[in-house]
Amino acid sequence: MKLFRYGEKGAEKPGVLLQDKHFDISTFGEDFTNNFIATGGLSRLAEFLAKDQQHLKEIPAGARLGTPLANPSKIVCAGLNYTDHVAETGFTQEAEPILFMKAISALNGPYDGVTIPKGSLETDWETELALVIAKEGTNITRAEVADYIAGYVLINDISERAYMKKRGGTWDKGKGCNTFAPVGPYFVTKDEISDVNNLNIWLKLNGKLMQAGNTKNFIYDIDTLLPYISEFFGLFPGDIISTGSPAGTGIGQHPPRFLRDGDIIEYGIDGLGEGRQLFTAYENLK
Amino acid sequence: MKLFRYGEKGAEKPGVLLQDKHFDISTFGEDFTNNFIATGGLSRLAEFLAKDQQHLKEIPAGARLGTPLANPSKIVCAGLNYTDHVAETGFTQEAEPILFMKAISALNGPYDGVTIPKGSLETDWETELALVIAKEGTNITRAEVADYIAGYVLINDISERAYMKKRGGTWDKGKGCNTFAPVGPYFVTKDEISDVNNLNIWLKLNGKLMQAGNTKNFIYDIDTLLPYISEFFGLFPGDIISTGSPAGTGIGQHPPRFLRDGDIIEYGIDGLGEGRQLFTAYENLK
Repeated sequence: MKLFRYGEKGAEKPGVLLQDKHFDISTFGEDFTNNFIATGGLSRLAEFLAKDQQHLKEIPAGARLGTPLANPSKIVCAGLNYTDHVAETGFTQEAEPILFMKAISALNGPYDGVTIPKGSLETDWETELALVIAKEGTNITRAEVADYIAGYVLINDISERAYMKKRGGTWDKGKGCNTFAPVGPYFVTKDEISDVNNLNIWLKLNGKLMQAGNTKNFIYDIDTLLPYISEFFGLFPGDIISTGSPAGTGIGQHPPRFLRDGDIIEYGIDGLGEGRQLFTAYENLK
Repeated sequence: MKLFRYGEKGAEKPGVLLQDKHFDISTFGEDFTNNFIATGGLSRLAEFLAKDQQHLKEIPAGARLGTPLANPSKIVCAGLNYTDHVAETGFTQEAEPILFMKAISALNGPYDGVTIPKGSLETDWETELALVIAKEGTNITRAEVADYIAGYVLINDISERAYMKKRGGTWDKGKGCNTFAPVGPYFVTKDEISDVNNLNIWLKLNGKLMQAGNTKNFIYDIDTLLPYISEFFGLFPGDIISTGSPAGTGIGQHPPRFLRDGDIIEYGIDGLGEGRQLFTAYENLK
């Protein structure tokens, strides 16, 4: 299933994609919350669709799509998880996966506008595959990984490179600005993705292809990464775990190309849909 | 007012402290959520207490106290914000405040047990003053700081030093383990604290005083820190902003003294109450 949420920010309603059409499922009576995931909501939804699919109505044309998860409690990200991206950033590859967090308050719909922070000169893009956690656990094993994954989402891990590297402290400073975490359009259940470690991933800046990678080039694949993360952070239903971005980010260009007012980013991953964002400088916000 | 929440984890009820007694306020009809803070809940609660205070019942003896905030969306922390603590850690003082995030999934009641992660050798304590955010904002000014503070909470910013320093990546790895964020007992409204930059802050390990500081020794005081943080992270009602810990942590001892199974930490800050935690190794959890 491909689940989405639509409508005004903060008041989204649930929907499902069926035969490439967006249907409202308000009559299902549940939103895509952590509790929905934790309590077998995906099975309930499958049963609902088996019975009531023919009664669903398409959502209004032009409706805004929001984040497809209602209330994730955290976003944990792996950094530098594609060999080619490590090389282009000039960062040092550590002996273990790099982890950081993205603020929940940065969540944004996949087609919403993104704000370049006040005075920012180094706002950058990073299209990524992210996991949606199915159940609670710590110290999980490789053999258990599949049980902990409910599905996948597309994310743009927007990053301010100067905030990350030149302002002291941890990467978090350049990762959690408002609107820096567009997620979706779809929460894609795991049965729809046959091999998560072999998906094409791409991104365009103003129509020009910048990132063209494949998740087969992960340094740490999903079966390695999730047990590792679960040593440090408890996994909880609805958590978003992002897996890093391939080469082709702005910091990797010669000279670097960072985002400016009016730039448009489009991106996607096989089977997960596409996102598109217009970037606006804070100083130009209405 | 001093607000608290009590009862089983995940099913806490709201209460208030009046004349050093803990009263249930379930009849008030609201929990201490972000929405409560955002929509003038503190004023509604003051009105409720003015009318109904004499009808309140004390909570059951021995009731568990939970976190006093129902659903904060993030915990942003300043690191190395007391000169004496910088010296003892051996970390380098950056030119700007160090910021990192603590996972929401690490939240814990102030008297709950804390788990030393599997295999951890360097779990450490850090008692801290934290702000509770009143309203949404970015790029706020010094003059606006008071408007953005709803009150204060006591926090133990439990930290795994090896995860922070020796495992690659950012500090977040050693800050967000399950149970590493005991908050409370009270959400203390700001009117109760006359000078937040002059509060005694202390911590004992197994009865021995280890930390004895004062918030007047902040490197970056509240009026400096909050505008700085708001450049990088949007502030939202209910957010917790922790302000760093004074000297006397485990990493500052000669030799370092990290937490072991059976250790007991007690700590407090003037006007904010006290916390107490028993530490248990993951391997010894029942």
